[in-house]
Amino acid sequence: MITAKAPGKLYIAGEYAVVENGYPAILVALNQFVTCTITEAKDEVGQIISRQYHDNSLQWRRRGDQMVVDKRDNPFSYILSAINVTEEFARSLNQRLGIYNIRIDSQLDSQSGKKYGLGSSAAVTVATVKALCEYYQLPVNKEMIFKLSSIAHFDVQGNGSLGDVAASVYGGWIAYRSFDRQWLSEQRHYLDLPALLSLPWPDLRIELLDAPANLALLIGWTGKPASTSRLVDKISLFKAKQQDEYHRFLDRSKACIHRMIDGFHTGDLDKIKAEIRYNRNLLQELAHRSGVQIETPLLKKLCQIAEEFGGAAKTSGAGGGDCGIVAIDGHADLPAVLDSWAKSRIEHLPLSVYFVNNIRRYTLQVKQR
Amino acid sequence: MITAKAPGKLYIAGEYAVVENGYPAILVALNQFVTCTITEAKDEVGQIISRQYHDNSLQWRRRGDQMVVDKRDNPFSYILSAINVTEEFARSLNQRLGIYNIRIDSQLDSQSGKKYGLGSSAAVTVATVKALCEYYQLPVNKEMIFKLSSIAHFDVQGNGSLGDVAASVYGGWIAYRSFDRQWLSEQRHYLDLPALLSLPWPDLRIELLDAPANLALLIGWTGKPASTSRLVDKISLFKAKQQDEYHRFLDRSKACIHRMIDGFHTGDLDKIKAEIRYNRNLLQELAHRSGVQIETPLLKKLCQIAEEFGGAAKTSGAGGGDCGIVAIDGHADLPAVLDSWAKSRIEHLPLSVYFVNNIRRYTLQVKQR
Amino acid sequence: MITAKAPGKLYIAGEYAVVENGYPAILVALNQFVTCTITEAKDEVGQIISRQYHDNSLQWRRRGDQMVVDKRDNPFSYILSAINVTEEFARSLNQRLGIYNIRIDSQLDSQSGKKYGLGSSAAVTVATVKALCEYYQLPVNKEMIFKLSSIAHFDVQGNGSLGDVAASVYGGWIAYRSFDRQWLSEQRHYLDLPALLSLPWPDLRIELLDAPANLALLIGWTGKPASTSRLVDKISLFKAKQQDEYHRFLDRSKACIHRMIDGFHTGDLDKIKAEIRYNRNLLQELAHRSGVQIETPLLKKLCQIAEEFGGAAKTSGAGGGDCGIVAIDGHADLPAVLDSWAKSRIEHLPLSVYFVNNIRRYTLQVKQR
Amino acid sequence: MITAKAPGKLYIAGEYAVVENGYPAILVALNQFVTCTITEAKDEVGQIISRQYHDNSLQWRRRGDQMVVDKRDNPFSYILSAINVTEEFARSLNQRLGIYNIRIDSQLDSQSGKKYGLGSSAAVTVATVKALCEYYQLPVNKEMIFKLSSIAHFDVQGNGSLGDVAASVYGGWIAYRSFDRQWLSEQRHYLDLPALLSLPWPDLRIELLDAPANLALLIGWTGKPASTSRLVDKISLFKAKQQDEYHRFLDRSKACIHRMIDGFHTGDLDKIKAEIRYNRNLLQELAHRSGVQIETPLLKKLCQIAEEFGGAAKTSGAGGGDCGIVAIDGHADLPAVLDSWAKSRIEHLPLSVYFVNNIRRYTLQVKQR
Repeated sequence: MITAKAPGKLYIAGEYAVVENGYPAILVALNQFVTCTITEAKDEVGQIISRQYHDNSLQWRRRGDQMVVDKRDNPFSYILSAINVTEEFARSLNQRLGIYNIRIDSQLDSQSGKKYGLGSSAAVTVATVKALCEYYQLPVNKEMIFKLSSIAHFDVQGNGSLGDVAASVYGGWIAYRSFDRQWLSEQRHYLDLPALLSLPWPDLRIELLDAPANLALLIGWTGKPASTSRLVDKISLFKAKQQDEYHRFLDRSKACIHRMIDGFHTGDLDKIKAEIRYNRNLLQELAHRSGVQIETPLLKKLCQIAEEFGGAAKTSGAGGGDCGIVAIDGHADLPAVLDSWAKSRIEHLPLSVYFVNNIRRYTLQVKQR
Repeated sequence: MITAKAPGKLYIAGEYAVVENGYPAILVALNQFVTCTITEAKDEVGQIISRQYHDNSLQWRRRGDQMVVDKRDNPFSYILSAINVTEEFARSLNQRLGIYNIRIDSQLDSQSGKKYGLGSSAAVTVATVKALCEYYQLPVNKEMIFKLSSIAHFDVQGNGSLGDVAASVYGGWIAYRSFDRQWLSEQRHYLDLPALLSLPWPDLRIELLDAPANLALLIGWTGKPASTSRLVDKISLFKAKQQDEYHRFLDRSKACIHRMIDGFHTGDLDKIKAEIRYNRNLLQELAHRSGVQIETPLLKKLCQIAEEFGGAAKTSGAGGGDCGIVAIDGHADLPAVLDSWAKSRIEHLPLSVYFVNNIRRYTLQVKQR
Repeated sequence: MITAKAPGKLYIAGEYAVVENGYPAILVALNQFVTCTITEAKDEVGQIISRQYHDNSLQWRRRGDQMVVDKRDNPFSYILSAINVTEEFARSLNQRLGIYNIRIDSQLDSQSGKKYGLGSSAAVTVATVKALCEYYQLPVNKEMIFKLSSIAHFDVQGNGSLGDVAASVYGGWIAYRSFDRQWLSEQRHYLDLPALLSLPWPDLRIELLDAPANLALLIGWTGKPASTSRLVDKISLFKAKQQDEYHRFLDRSKACIHRMIDGFHTGDLDKIKAEIRYNRNLLQELAHRSGVQIETPLLKKLCQIAEEFGGAAKTSGAGGGDCGIVAIDGHADLPAVLDSWAKSRIEHLPLSVYFVNNIRRYTLQVKQR
Repeated sequence: MITAKAPGKLYIAGEYAVVENGYPAILVALNQFVTCTITEAKDEVGQIISRQYHDNSLQWRRRGDQMVVDKRDNPFSYILSAINVTEEFARSLNQRLGIYNIRIDSQLDSQSGKKYGLGSSAAVTVATVKALCEYYQLPVNKEMIFKLSSIAHFDVQGNGSLGDVAASVYGGWIAYRSFDRQWLSEQRHYLDLPALLSLPWPDLRIELLDAPANLALLIGWTGKPASTSRLVDKISLFKAKQQDEYHRFLDRSKACIHRMIDGFHTGDLDKIKAEIRYNRNLLQELAHRSGVQIETPLLKKLCQIAEEFGGAAKTSGAGGGDCGIVAIDGHADLPAVLDSWAKSRIEHLPLSVYFVNNIRRYTLQVKQR
């Protein structure tokens, strides 16, 4: 029996901008896991079991008259894609393929069926790739696991920054710069996986950051977003129609993240907090111009409370609900924050940062163009 | 909001043989339902929600080195196939297609997550087809709903008798003779749906039977089968290797079902019971020759207890677990049967026969070759 | 470099009926070939070249609003399917897969681009399977080549009798009884290729017939059929709507073929000729009742001329054009027949029967149900 | 009957670099056409006929053990994709779909079966989109035809600059800057076609250039490239491994094209010629560093001869064979150039620039980021 696990993540800053090539974000891995267990199948039939499928729903759109189902919600899409990519790699190394059972257990959805938006699709993909690499005894390091998982995840989504995959592979606090995914699509036509894994990927940068000792991270959950698809549609339209303003947003976000990374390097909590506030403003302006609500009234409340106690707060991820994050001095009156949250019906998620193999510093660097 | 429901079913007799063209079986529809609800989508994105997805598992096999996933376990396969076929029909009638939400609720799996083998895939398909026919206001009768559902179900499975679809559409006690599915595959190449629905399908016969007034049906559940796939594999091998013996089984099964139908026609409970016992023997011999166990010790116990109280009992469906059925005089000491079952840890399913629109007699007949 | 070739075929009798399970036909392999050549690829890219692609056309239909392309016209469909099936078999035997170039040359279409209807899809499939079996050094006999080719061919077409595959594998004069293809579809779910190839296939029967010494076969071509798809559509409709009459046709065709086989066994040319005439009548009645023309005026002329010189003639295959065949005593005035044909603008195809490895007698028998 | 035609193209400068977002190239449309003819189908079956399928070959690679066929060589891929996209657009406008025959005739391959590399895939796509827009009477302008064709072409290739599509739609001399195709992939998830066609596409720029009156364009063909796939593989590897040097190439190419565009704006033939020579050098350095040959000895010869007579010459497109282009003063001794070419077995292609609707100036501009 083989077991591998991969943590969930939250965005600290840089969301939305990070989907563009070469733009950065900061994420954090959390001690909530997807676990993948592999056992040999007893007969000719293998089984794939996923305990996390609580939502049981598919989204679809029309293209002309055709129904186009969005398989990005379906954990099995990621499991199967992870299997395909890892077995393609195994076959390239002349490994014989086996018949096995895979079981996925997830803590990234709560028992009560609420989904906290901790990025389960990335964690499912990473856990499956890791377990299968062990099953087939493939010679891989973290970078190769990141690349295999990214290919598998991108094959399903056709977009996305893959920052959540990086967080799930490397753990801890990470600064992530998204690579050129059009380049990846092209190279998949020409290169086999061993070649593709050994190459540097344009613009990719992953740096494990060391957080200041006095930085405490608080996470509050404000409920399920009303309609993420509508929110993302509208921002897509803004991006398509107001390209100049969109690029202004991108450039400001990039500068902000660079200053925040600097704050990590120098252990300067105030600087980090300042940039969290600035990033919050950028996202609010983006939302305003797109005609959507990233920061709902409850998320606003979450932030206000945090600010009252000296923290810097913002939404995390797509917004419209889900989590807000707070960077705050560990000596502040944290119980009081949580108390105020509880009174506003904001659910505190008592999670902590997860470090893979206890590694806290690391850089995978490709020189930027 | 549109709501449609379709009942689950159990086999009374004729299982295994009925997968061959022109061979009959007797089934009964039960008052456990799959419900399909359609509402208009609020924006450009529709949603499909299935509450029944408790199993969360996929089965797969290898073909050479490829992983072939069995989508027959996945309720979404049936929902999507039902949508495809019904919308193809709607477009043939120049209906404009809409964007909607579909929600599937199922009673065919218990709250505790146990699956009783009541044929949810057929009921899901039928409920979806019915709801969409109403949504698009398509002019359909039961026969057309059966045909649309059969095409959708067969597109997913690539085999199966479709007897469960018939039970789910027509309700009550039904005698079903399976049609020529190779003919259907061929005609799908040449004919559009309006033409295909208006034609008689070779060998198809569906008769609603009137059960004797004194016939009581008892259903006991003996737990989840160990490995249905292994059981079906072995019987496939027997069928492939011992073709003469297999055809002897088929012929005997057919004769048995014909005599049993006669018992229904004449209201002769004893005759029905005699043929249930005979059919039980046929299945045991099939199992013996295939080297598998259709009737597990607990199913044997279930039958023995029923016999002690004057009932005729047998396994229902693929066997190796799941349900046993008992035909017994309604004046017999039924509580005692249930009591004995409970002592043997056999779970009584307190279901009753479900009649669609209260119709109890009907025949859809295509002259047999 | 590996080269394998497979001959084309013509139907002598039994066409249309032979698509039903268990119904027989008589075919003949002809000395026109598809050749498959395999060479090692020089780099990571293999090439598949088909010299026979003269038609350059696809047929399509609508299903609802979707465009469904008929890939059955495309030789690459058969080549790719043959590769898939043979490599699946090779992988089951743990063969390592290679990268190679495949080149297909076909004599089954004339230089001038006319297509004689000699069954190139079957020959392409068989030649590719044979060449790849040699390339991978797989332990196969004729029966296994027939089965691999049949699976590959059926995967593309989803129907068809596979009689042309049998003729292309075994050569000579063959009596072919079509096997249960629904059974094959089902077993493909449960069994791997080594198991499937080792089993007897229900109803399959292939017998190499020894033709009487005085039997001469003449083949005349009457031009490209106007619209085969329309012809087949209409006969499908007849088959679907007039099931009783269709079965009467099937039964008569079967009896006719059995008597004709008897004529081969006893070397009785007159008996063979009598049954060719009878089969011609059966097909004409089928055409009449379906409202189509199998025997065009030019094909009728072809037959009349043959009859004037003592031959027995009929259409071959789907009809509506293409070839007519004549069985005639070798001592008759054959040049006069050809002369009369030429005057009527009927093109004589100077082909002769092709025997694989000079084998003229052989039976692959599965007891019929 | 509806007929639409679209011209082929050649690259003047900027090849290889133009595949990157925002990088420019100059192309020219030539008076060799793909013609698409649509007629109503007589029955339920439509036909697609392509006269251009001379190559009859597919390329494939392995991914793990799977055979991945490159459908980019197959004209039917482009025809079918053009149909899909245009019909999706037609359905969005509530057009009823028809059943029709499509016939493609191409001058872009010579009668003798040699392929000159004039970009038939783009022309096939554009001609089909134009013919179908007329068939369905869709309200489109050139920009929308470009966008529909680009989507269709990109759906097949998954990469490519789409500069050849622009040349085929707009005709004449064009400066093309490639748009952000990752953006297009993403927006296809969120927006329907009417929305997508009405938006500006990031970085896209198409300008019709007015050539100096004294500029003569000569085209010479040097034979079929040995192995384009190998050449492109190697340059992909260079691009992946030497990312700094690759970006230096990109920047130089961009500056060169900008200067050349300036030469067109000011009618300065000498400036244009100088930049053609500079671009030639850039491509030779790219080839050298990638370890491939873009400029074969015969292409070098072609250039040398042109230079002797005062022209500026370079390879056109991927190179390794195919065409070279020459910009030369129309008063130079052109017959002498052609004569020298003929002696070196370089085939002069007597083509001229093709202007759509006689339009010679036009700009479709999206402000660059």
